[in-house]
Amino acid sequence: MPALHQLGIVGSGQIARMTHQAALQLGITPRLLAENASDSAAQAAPQASFSHPDTLYSFASDCEVITFEHERIDIGLLAALEREHVAIRPGVKTIRAAFDRLHQRRALSNKGFLVPLYAELRSPDDVIDFAEKAGYPFMIKTIRSGAPGQLNVWRVENSNEALRVLAENPNRELMAEEHLDILSELVVLVVRRPGGNMRTYPVAEAVNANGACHIVRVPASIGNRVAAESVELAQRIATELETVGVLAVEIFITTKGVVVNELAARPHNAGHPTIEGAVTSQFENHVRAILDLPLGLTTLRAPAVVSINIIGRIDGFDPARNLPDALAVEGANVHLYGKRPWQGRKLGHVTALGDSFEQALALAQRAESALRGRHR
Amino acid sequence: MPALHQLGIVGSGQIARMTHQAALQLGITPRLLAENASDSAAQAAPQASFSHPDTLYSFASDCEVITFEHERIDIGLLAALEREHVAIRPGVKTIRAAFDRLHQRRALSNKGFLVPLYAELRSPDDVIDFAEKAGYPFMIKTIRSGAPGQLNVWRVENSNEALRVLAENPNRELMAEEHLDILSELVVLVVRRPGGNMRTYPVAEAVNANGACHIVRVPASIGNRVAAESVELAQRIATELETVGVLAVEIFITTKGVVVNELAARPHNAGHPTIEGAVTSQFENHVRAILDLPLGLTTLRAPAVVSINIIGRIDGFDPARNLPDALAVEGANVHLYGKRPWQGRKLGHVTALGDSFEQALALAQRAESALRGRHR
Repeated sequence: MPALHQLGIVGSGQIARMTHQAALQLGITPRLLAENASDSAAQAAPQASFSHPDTLYSFASDCEVITFEHERIDIGLLAALEREHVAIRPGVKTIRAAFDRLHQRRALSNKGFLVPLYAELRSPDDVIDFAEKAGYPFMIKTIRSGAPGQLNVWRVENSNEALRVLAENPNRELMAEEHLDILSELVVLVVRRPGGNMRTYPVAEAVNANGACHIVRVPASIGNRVAAESVELAQRIATELETVGVLAVEIFITTKGVVVNELAARPHNAGHPTIEGAVTSQFENHVRAILDLPLGLTTLRAPAVVSINIIGRIDGFDPARNLPDALAVEGANVHLYGKRPWQGRKLGHVTALGDSFEQALALAQRAESALRGRHR
Repeated sequence: MPALHQLGIVGSGQIARMTHQAALQLGITPRLLAENASDSAAQAAPQASFSHPDTLYSFASDCEVITFEHERIDIGLLAALEREHVAIRPGVKTIRAAFDRLHQRRALSNKGFLVPLYAELRSPDDVIDFAEKAGYPFMIKTIRSGAPGQLNVWRVENSNEALRVLAENPNRELMAEEHLDILSELVVLVVRRPGGNMRTYPVAEAVNANGACHIVRVPASIGNRVAAESVELAQRIATELETVGVLAVEIFITTKGVVVNELAARPHNAGHPTIEGAVTSQFENHVRAILDLPLGLTTLRAPAVVSINIIGRIDGFDPARNLPDALAVEGANVHLYGKRPWQGRKLGHVTALGDSFEQALALAQRAESALRGRHR
């Protein structure tokens, strides 16, 4: 029997908030390591510890299982916690791969998975070498995620732009990746228990992505063969990494084939449609998996489900002010995270179920437009 | 624009807990008046005020809108709060009717609604008078609800039994009600905004009730005519009482006709199926209504939805210990409230959606059996 009351959640954004909500439904009260009482998840959790991130060790050593919302973790600390018999979820092997993009690329290509051409960028010479191999434009990414709001990805058109990114980020580790002709951008959510038992959600697809995943549809508009290949790929990665919990595998369908883009070892943006749209939400299945409880059905409750992120505008407008208009859109489900509105910040999402993608999309877009106050 | 952040919830059981969860999804952080940090809702709410019930006045006067989970309220206090411009939900008129069974019967029969024969019982003479009119067996009820776990209803077979109930409850106000031949026991959930705008959920039915509503199915197994009549009846009552929020109207279909049993002016047990089974849950619609926000669709997501309450056993067994078995029942949704197990206490519920009542019931019963540890 797992310890249902010694679950710790590190992080206090909307992913932590929704994970906390899912645990509560099962009668499990997680402890939360938040930095501020006003953080999204801290508003929803009475046991939040409002303390410096350095207190992770003392927080975690009081838990039997801990899960992480973000990727800013000291790997050495995790190893120490494991020696204290704290179950680290998703597991140190997955954390290494998910939290360090360069290590992730190496680990995946060593195992035979197709990844974009990549190279570490430590000097201007590395830029020139990579451009010779891959040509312009290409992508520069940070190897580790930064703080929320920090830019982590740049598309560079020429050597001047590339060298400027290097010059402007002297203290961040950077890598280059080839620019791919992307036909579709898929996300496979795998949820895996410690013993290896796995479930996969129907493949999600980012629509009109522009680099950020603002509209997600489930199921993806792909054939059965591509869907099966994507699911199999994601399950193989979860197995290789011995992931426990949700692993989000971002996949590009390109003119070169099926390429693994990135991994996120936690509930993912692309899983928001599962809250209303699936029998068991990604958040509940994440909680079940990390506590080694039986996984729930990942089947959809409708033929099509669409979620749209609500992103902070440049003028700092608060979409909560338009909540009455959004709620007037019948049939849409509105989620707001209680966050102060900053440009580019994820403030909420809307979800709609439908008999077709077009129907669900139209409904979700009406709710999103109402929240954002456009077309009024 | 309503004040989205000055919502107060008085009470800390599972109804308050689930109402709190629904508000959070909309980005609204309610304040909670709980008595103990271990209460079901207090586990889920960081702003709980752990204080004596007498602190209601100071708690509520800091809110713009307050809603009540339970019926143990001083009506005089509410009138004073209204003078301070605190919006009292469901409204003082409804609270009077819902919280005082005798007043409720009088108010309903004055307005022409069919209610069971009833009489106040102040002395043994009242018992004899009522028995002459209604015959044995009949029901004795307390006029006001007691503390959780206190018995509020007795079925008496003869004058000895009736007089014993009177003798054993010297400090509680009692009333008698005729025993009815009940063909079905329905619950209509109406949700009403301050301006009168209303939505009604498909009629729910208590299955094999035995006086307590442990299995609920939606929609009820009744014809369209009875359904329409029940909905119309419930809407008329909500309008008469100027209810704001969810009003649960319990209706008996009897050999005498459609009889109003009881009113509950808050989200109701019979509305649990709406969490997964309806586009908008009763809890979210309650929050929307009391904040005067547009109401959400009350349509079902499946042809049949069944919820079963998990009730504490005499031996104090904790169903949370069987959570792994219950989660292994694929397709059922399990809710536990984080409450210590006492006999007769509502500790959780399970819900299943299906293409037919029989399918949903079978699935819900498997999850309930697993949680209760029977047949193993």
